[in-house]
Amino acid sequence: MEAKRFLLLFFLLSLISISTAATTQKVRARKPCKSMVFYFHDIIYNGKNAKNATSAIVGAPQWANRTLLAGQNHFGDLVVFDDPITLDNNLHSTPVGRAQGFYIYDKKDIFTAWFGFSFVFNSTEHTGSINFAGADPLMNKTRDISVIGGTGDFFMARGVATLMTDAFEGEVYFRLRTDIKFYECW
Amino acid sequence: MEAKRFLLLFFLLSLISISTAATTQKVRARKPCKSMVFYFHDIIYNGKNAKNATSAIVGAPQWANRTLLAGQNHFGDLVVFDDPITLDNNLHSTPVGRAQGFYIYDKKDIFTAWFGFSFVFNSTEHTGSINFAGADPLMNKTRDISVIGGTGDFFMARGVATLMTDAFEGEVYFRLRTDIKFYECW
Amino acid sequence: MEAKRFLLLFFLLSLISISTAATTQKVRARKPCKSMVFYFHDIIYNGKNAKNATSAIVGAPQWANRTLLAGQNHFGDLVVFDDPITLDNNLHSTPVGRAQGFYIYDKKDIFTAWFGFSFVFNSTEHTGSINFAGADPLMNKTRDISVIGGTGDFFMARGVATLMTDAFEGEVYFRLRTDIKFYECW
Repeated sequence: MEAKRFLLLFFLLSLISISTAATTQKVRARKPCKSMVFYFHDIIYNGKNAKNATSAIVGAPQWANRTLLAGQNHFGDLVVFDDPITLDNNLHSTPVGRAQGFYIYDKKDIFTAWFGFSFVFNSTEHTGSINFAGADPLMNKTRDISVIGGTGDFFMARGVATLMTDAFEGEVYFRLRTDIKFYECW
Repeated sequence: MEAKRFLLLFFLLSLISISTAATTQKVRARKPCKSMVFYFHDIIYNGKNAKNATSAIVGAPQWANRTLLAGQNHFGDLVVFDDPITLDNNLHSTPVGRAQGFYIYDKKDIFTAWFGFSFVFNSTEHTGSINFAGADPLMNKTRDISVIGGTGDFFMARGVATLMTDAFEGEVYFRLRTDIKFYECW
Repeated sequence: MEAKRFLLLFFLLSLISISTAATTQKVRARKPCKSMVFYFHDIIYNGKNAKNATSAIVGAPQWANRTLLAGQNHFGDLVVFDDPITLDNNLHSTPVGRAQGFYIYDKKDIFTAWFGFSFVFNSTEHTGSINFAGADPLMNKTRDISVIGGTGDFFMARGVATLMTDAFEGEVYFRLRTDIKFYECW
């Protein structure tokens, strides 16, 4: 009788162990704990649009200058930006934050860039920042980069952001839709 | 009687489940597992101070040069640095490591920069590196950036670092107090 | 008798707590959940090798140009790269991906650089990207940088990558062996 109860106890205990393992696993499930969509708008300085420009070339290869994007898919151009973030795809919507950082075109034969930047929020809705890094092979319809950290409302966040070129006008304006998915929330 | 004991057992089991959940949660508690404070000192090259300078402008927008910081809040200046890290706010204290990386001033209308850098230690006290990335709106009293990784003594660390401008002398010297808090320790 | 059983139960419960803690700890064990070795090959543009070059100087300090690496251990040179990744140390092996990003030489008195880059894969074997950041004191035999994130097959990865200079030919070619160890896999 005593033995039977023991057996039962052990059976229940092992159930717990299993559920414990499951809990630990769950933390790593590929289900976002937070999702957000934003757009950011980049108007690059071209020598004539100083008033509207939100970005500028600050590095270029030896064969190029810093006024116009270089040939060979802009290979070597380093661009610094401070772009408005909006909730919809309208450049003239009220910005909810700023996308700040840089990108470098890093390939001669197709358009590709490497991004390091932050979304910086300081409004009633969001305070804090989300930090991103990764490769953007911008001819692909969707590209995934990493959310490498966050502060404030986005404290310690990690995840993946999917970039989509929502508009691309000549060599002056582009708009990136950014689908942010956090898989680690605190 | 048997039923009563069962009920008790289940009650205790649910207690365990709760404590298990708490354990998992605890991993994500906003309580640092390690805290450190360092200062680093940046002396920017201005054409005359090659001997003392610890940083230099290596990228600039088309309208600026690489000897002096650009107008419009230095927008577009890319600075590379190898700055001494000290334990107190004295530039002449024995360095305990080096802060190495870059910052880019990324906004025309106020001082703001984007930082990517590492603290590199190689002493009896610390060996390894801490990697940082994030936006530094440097007119704010405190600014949070992300600790995105670490190696050696700081293996796999993640956290938040709070930057404070501890001194700012003209356009040549600044000192940043860096309060590092790890929330993931290994 | 009842009391004795209670005691036993509590003893077993505490055993569970311990095993629970262990489970949580195990997640943070310093045992990689995935290991990979790759080589990447950097041929820097020197004014004459446009056809073969995989990288180019795009930023330089005021005292240097963008055709040749600067004196003083290349301090201040910012290099953008799109380098082939191979499985062995042969530059002419079929590339399995591209290493894309930048490095900045950040120290005057010894060779040291700061790297921000991605391994980008798009083959039958691997699809996705691995993002890296960190200091590379390249005179050391081995240097650890951080794996700060990943996408696709490397979704949410974190870890440490050990860089080794496998070849270094004049100022034009170098090859880095990259031992990647993930400690967080999803």
